[in-house]
Amino acid sequence: MAARPITFLSDYGYEDEFAGVCRAVIARVAPEARLIDLTHGVPRHDVRRGALALADALPYAPAGVHLAVVDPGVGTERRAVAIRVATEDRVLVGPDNGLLWPAVQALGGPLEVVDLDRSPFRLEPVSATFHGRDLFAPAAAALALGTALAEVGHVVETGSLVRLDLPPPRSEPDRLAVEVLHFDRFGNATLSAGARDLAGGTLRPGHALSVEVGRRSLGATFARTFADVGEGEVLVFEDSSGRLALAVNRGSAAEMLEVAPGDELAIVVAR
Amino acid sequence: MAARPITFLSDYGYEDEFAGVCRAVIARVAPEARLIDLTHGVPRHDVRRGALALADALPYAPAGVHLAVVDPGVGTERRAVAIRVATEDRVLVGPDNGLLWPAVQALGGPLEVVDLDRSPFRLEPVSATFHGRDLFAPAAAALALGTALAEVGHVVETGSLVRLDLPPPRSEPDRLAVEVLHFDRFGNATLSAGARDLAGGTLRPGHALSVEVGRRSLGATFARTFADVGEGEVLVFEDSSGRLALAVNRGSAAEMLEVAPGDELAIVVAR
Amino acid sequence: MAARPITFLSDYGYEDEFAGVCRAVIARVAPEARLIDLTHGVPRHDVRRGALALADALPYAPAGVHLAVVDPGVGTERRAVAIRVATEDRVLVGPDNGLLWPAVQALGGPLEVVDLDRSPFRLEPVSATFHGRDLFAPAAAALALGTALAEVGHVVETGSLVRLDLPPPRSEPDRLAVEVLHFDRFGNATLSAGARDLAGGTLRPGHALSVEVGRRSLGATFARTFADVGEGEVLVFEDSSGRLALAVNRGSAAEMLEVAPGDELAIVVAR
Repeated sequence: MAARPITFLSDYGYEDEFAGVCRAVIARVAPEARLIDLTHGVPRHDVRRGALALADALPYAPAGVHLAVVDPGVGTERRAVAIRVATEDRVLVGPDNGLLWPAVQALGGPLEVVDLDRSPFRLEPVSATFHGRDLFAPAAAALALGTALAEVGHVVETGSLVRLDLPPPRSEPDRLAVEVLHFDRFGNATLSAGARDLAGGTLRPGHALSVEVGRRSLGATFARTFADVGEGEVLVFEDSSGRLALAVNRGSAAEMLEVAPGDELAIVVAR
Repeated sequence: MAARPITFLSDYGYEDEFAGVCRAVIARVAPEARLIDLTHGVPRHDVRRGALALADALPYAPAGVHLAVVDPGVGTERRAVAIRVATEDRVLVGPDNGLLWPAVQALGGPLEVVDLDRSPFRLEPVSATFHGRDLFAPAAAALALGTALAEVGHVVETGSLVRLDLPPPRSEPDRLAVEVLHFDRFGNATLSAGARDLAGGTLRPGHALSVEVGRRSLGATFARTFADVGEGEVLVFEDSSGRLALAVNRGSAAEMLEVAPGDELAIVVAR
Repeated sequence: MAARPITFLSDYGYEDEFAGVCRAVIARVAPEARLIDLTHGVPRHDVRRGALALADALPYAPAGVHLAVVDPGVGTERRAVAIRVATEDRVLVGPDNGLLWPAVQALGGPLEVVDLDRSPFRLEPVSATFHGRDLFAPAAAALALGTALAEVGHVVETGSLVRLDLPPPRSEPDRLAVEVLHFDRFGNATLSAGARDLAGGTLRPGHALSVEVGRRSLGATFARTFADVGEGEVLVFEDSSGRLALAVNRGSAAEMLEVAPGDELAIVVAR
């Protein structure tokens, strides 16, 4: 049987060999499995950022094994898990700290969960600080080779999984209060709301808005894409994952807004 | 039929999952196609930098499909294209904004061009801001599977492609005025001239030069490689792509010269 | 015969296309060879950092060809080599500047060495500044296809290899003086000592220590993993490669200690 593809996301970064060592372990156990790097640039220990990136990416990935490691609690009592979900034949592997939760939800919810702590595939001695190499990567590779879930760990309740919830937007008739979830490389801000949360999704491109950040208020436009507004102007748009986002055409919303992930702002609809 | 290899270059960076999602789309459509990441570190929206990197890299890549996305005009009227070139059996896929032009020229010029706007392989709904995922990656994967060019888009004139021209060097007998195109990771400056533009390519290693930057003049040496000059000394050399370049042995020309991409400088040959 | 896997480590970084061009060359010569990127984020010209990353990673990689390029002396008299080692069927390829030495030692020592200078697989004209593309990658790809070592270069003495030695720790009964080798992405410091060099490896988790940096002294705890100490507290631990390391739980030892790679510090055992 051919090996199944493995996607891989982490906060291991690119300076060190951590992600590469996990790739090496996978290639050793499952030489035929295609490895698809989603990103290893998740900010250090930022479980929520990793969880959103994973949930946004996996629907586009082939069915297979989905390895994800953002793991500030490595070596502690936090569980290591593999989760089979209801959509297609997919298994997620990683720490049970909420990282996998939004993706599991996006893929139909958990059908079967195993705890990898005493996985027979782990590399001994298991280090206390690098479970990506010693626990998660070997389990992912074994699963890619077709090993049954119940053979890589011991079954636990699906209801015991750690959840991760996003802050709900607060919606008033012409005002939407949201949290800045994060900025991407281009300085665009992802907001804690779906595009339909703003005026019920009824706005047409070109509608005037204002963005309130602390005591400041900036003019903005509801738009489809960056170049629909002038250079240096602010737009609010539905991003490619259906979330509400805020950008500056050919500029950086991160710099213009002077806010950080976790800060609040409000979008006000002009009437 | 085996799938053809796909090279991939972009300005998506490494912090976000953008490049990874495109890789996922490709793996889903063309599971057998080998994917070769050229780089995703092109500076944001820097079409010229991406164009040069692509033109320098592709002659070393296997024939196949060459995906490139540096796309400040995503979602606007700029076209999305696939271009079959005259050298080997190669197809380039990306925005029609000049990004592909130098590589197309290096590979013998365009033989056939299609507009991907209504490509039957696009992922619906096509987002306004992420054509890499929804338009370019699926088209590249379809082409890697052997789909004919005319099946992924509608044919347009080869003469209609957007071109990208580099600033020509200005050559006097003992003086060459050039633009700094960009700096690499090592702080080496790539200049807008070929090695033969400097004194007709007649200089021998060790020849003394001076570099004029604004009102400053720095001593330099024409050399083969970094270690041919002393530590901290300036060299002018033919880089690995045949361009003229400027570096500091074990140092950074970017820091020593205090110039930015787009700035002018002159190289003067001592007699 | 199936091609053998190739691991690849370098200081080419992610901004430029250098690593990508080497990947392209490999894919052209050996289309079936699996390529495993270990990292390309080794700090520029940092041979020692690259050497340690390579030695730590290779024992986890499948047997095959191990390409590594951190090459400040490119184009000079430094040799380019391929080394067959005693453990499994592994060949290392790279500059002979110490980069490969710790990995060669970890893999049983050198059995056979060839100089690649006039390798028949090199890409002509060989540039003076990009031997990764023109010399090392083609040799690695040829070896992955099963070419005999003696066919890619001319045999030289195994005893002629350039070595790389780490600064030995200075151990007193309750005090261990070490050098900071480097920091990882998480700000954790790798020290020039094995875990057994500290008090003969007899310490139990929870043992109190102090860390002396210049004239400062910081309290620390010997621990298994980060979360075994409070947030912002200093721990000394055995890292996943068996080396002694120093970290701050959910913080950065690099920032708290105010030291740089190459600096000395001492760990004092409280009695």
